[in-house]
Amino acid sequence: MTENKILPIYFDNAATGGFKPDGVISATKTALEFCANPGRSGHKLSLACLERVYACRKLLCDFFGGYSYDRVIFTKNCTEALNIAILGTLKAGDEVVTTVAEHNSVLRPLEHLKSKGVKSFYAPLDVNGEIDLNALASFVTNKTRAVIITLASNVTGVAPDINKLRALIPENCLLICDGAQACGHVEINMKESGIDALAVAGHKGMLGIQGSGALLFSERFNPAPVLFGGTGSESQNLNMPDFYPDALESGTVSYPAIISMGEGALYLKENMLKNMQKTEQMCAFLCDSLVKIKGLKLYSKHNPYGIVAFGLENMQSEVAAYNLSEEYSICVRGGLHCAPKMHEALASDGLVRASVSAFNSMNECEIFIKAVSELAQK
Amino acid sequence: MTENKILPIYFDNAATGGFKPDGVISATKTALEFCANPGRSGHKLSLACLERVYACRKLLCDFFGGYSYDRVIFTKNCTEALNIAILGTLKAGDEVVTTVAEHNSVLRPLEHLKSKGVKSFYAPLDVNGEIDLNALASFVTNKTRAVIITLASNVTGVAPDINKLRALIPENCLLICDGAQACGHVEINMKESGIDALAVAGHKGMLGIQGSGALLFSERFNPAPVLFGGTGSESQNLNMPDFYPDALESGTVSYPAIISMGEGALYLKENMLKNMQKTEQMCAFLCDSLVKIKGLKLYSKHNPYGIVAFGLENMQSEVAAYNLSEEYSICVRGGLHCAPKMHEALASDGLVRASVSAFNSMNECEIFIKAVSELAQK
Repeated sequence: MTENKILPIYFDNAATGGFKPDGVISATKTALEFCANPGRSGHKLSLACLERVYACRKLLCDFFGGYSYDRVIFTKNCTEALNIAILGTLKAGDEVVTTVAEHNSVLRPLEHLKSKGVKSFYAPLDVNGEIDLNALASFVTNKTRAVIITLASNVTGVAPDINKLRALIPENCLLICDGAQACGHVEINMKESGIDALAVAGHKGMLGIQGSGALLFSERFNPAPVLFGGTGSESQNLNMPDFYPDALESGTVSYPAIISMGEGALYLKENMLKNMQKTEQMCAFLCDSLVKIKGLKLYSKHNPYGIVAFGLENMQSEVAAYNLSEEYSICVRGGLHCAPKMHEALASDGLVRASVSAFNSMNECEIFIKAVSELAQK
Repeated sequence: MTENKILPIYFDNAATGGFKPDGVISATKTALEFCANPGRSGHKLSLACLERVYACRKLLCDFFGGYSYDRVIFTKNCTEALNIAILGTLKAGDEVVTTVAEHNSVLRPLEHLKSKGVKSFYAPLDVNGEIDLNALASFVTNKTRAVIITLASNVTGVAPDINKLRALIPENCLLICDGAQACGHVEINMKESGIDALAVAGHKGMLGIQGSGALLFSERFNPAPVLFGGTGSESQNLNMPDFYPDALESGTVSYPAIISMGEGALYLKENMLKNMQKTEQMCAFLCDSLVKIKGLKLYSKHNPYGIVAFGLENMQSEVAAYNLSEEYSICVRGGLHCAPKMHEALASDGLVRASVSAFNSMNECEIFIKAVSELAQK
């Protein structure tokens, strides 16, 4: 693993992973230089691309303990995957139980569905800042079609015990998980954890490029299409084909993006555990150091996602992030991180979020702590 | 321009452009190696990406004679752009006039809207195989909200005179154009032609990578979101922001894909005319040579899109395409090309489509004609 030794210090990996393994970069470069259209034509170049796309479906299915490779569909980002899982599944009269820790990629589709007769309930945080799973379970009724929950908060890195949650809710209740911050950081096994749908961001922990994402889902989870168009299959049918993955993949897929995510998964099969340990170590160091700074309030605990959120008494989060960038060449994100209910629950009007990956270094963490200490004293 | 001198001969550019200019490849490679998240954070790397994304909006707006750069939104492909234009605009009670030449990226969204009370009418081809614009105009009533038309058929390369069409339909009727096959091949000026919405494929004539696409639209065209999620703006708002481009760009955009399309546009600003002439020349040669082959029926005329469709008396189109690939290493597409009504109108159950780009060569065209001649005699 190459450590980043040059400035700027990129601590915004929860927005987009700043560093990719060499294998991802080279495979993606090759894929973009010459890619025929997978699944559209029968010639050998098109078929070769199609074969690799299917190999990536199988790879992701194995990587996440998925149900079957035809239930792995490729999307442009995690948001599209969540939209398909939510808009393609929920109907008027359904109830949904979700949490205040969700990202706008969950909150906004649900808000849209409110006018269509889908009612949502939001589980709060407990006194420790964890998602209150017992409160969540108490919202579940016989009308609850699905529980939708992030596998790790993009604000604080807090993560629910998903197996405990599954045991708390009825078997027939669908479990939809936002994997944006968790995928590629920790082991996820859909079948073992009873996850019905997992939305994956390709360009964060999965180490792929922007434009990559996926939705994996169970045999009892049958989302309807949200987008409609050519699939290269059943072309005479004016409706979308009724089989997966075709039903949910309209128009040309992004071969380079798919390859990048597949290569990311290959790399992670070998390196995830090692990377997780390093990320946890840096995250712990950041938390333990930040908490000692006067005038700083820490909102994160040790976590394997590398996410550390804090507020400064003397400075708004966006101003702090701006100063870190301008004065120290350190990239972090201020503001609400597209998670308004989480900030409300934390009684915050914006936080600084540093997010490290295994490609960062302890040396960078030390520089960062020094910079924040200085800022806190301004 | 580099000519392709090695086998296989790639004549499937209407599916995905097989060759990209060096500038596109190198800019995209750079973009994928390090891209922060444009529009999500305030640090310098994120802002630098955001600035380039906006430069690409301006570039495309200028390139297509668009209305304003904030009405250029980036999509994952042309299909998503068409879905936003169609599903985001049409309401129960609306009528649509479209054509039999449309791709499933138009036909399938319209079929979906049928159950929601949107009625569609399909203009036929005239005796010359052209889209019958007078017939089209005759379907327009005071309930007609939009005319949706391809700027070039992906099956035969036949193209409507869009200025003539605009003059034939009422001023208040929205004009939505599918630019999948036309963009990057011929000049398009939205304002001059009164086009309200233009859907762009990034990976065909625009010379970008797969995963790139765009929708450009006029000030009176105000599509509602089809996908919902984080935008990095108005994060406390559970509804999508009501301004463009944010309203229509949920989740992280694909910076490498956007850069590739922008670089493609830059290249085309200099080279489109020259490339068009070369493509037209090759297309004319193919048409004029194919029409002489016994047992072959030609469905295309000279066109600047490089599209040539034909049928063989002795062989199904998929079999012919397969043989061209296996025996001659020539890549073309057989079948229905996701345009079922067009094939119905042509009384075809599948055609061979060769599609050349300016990166192909006359030498390749000659090899192709020889191969087809041999196949036709089998």
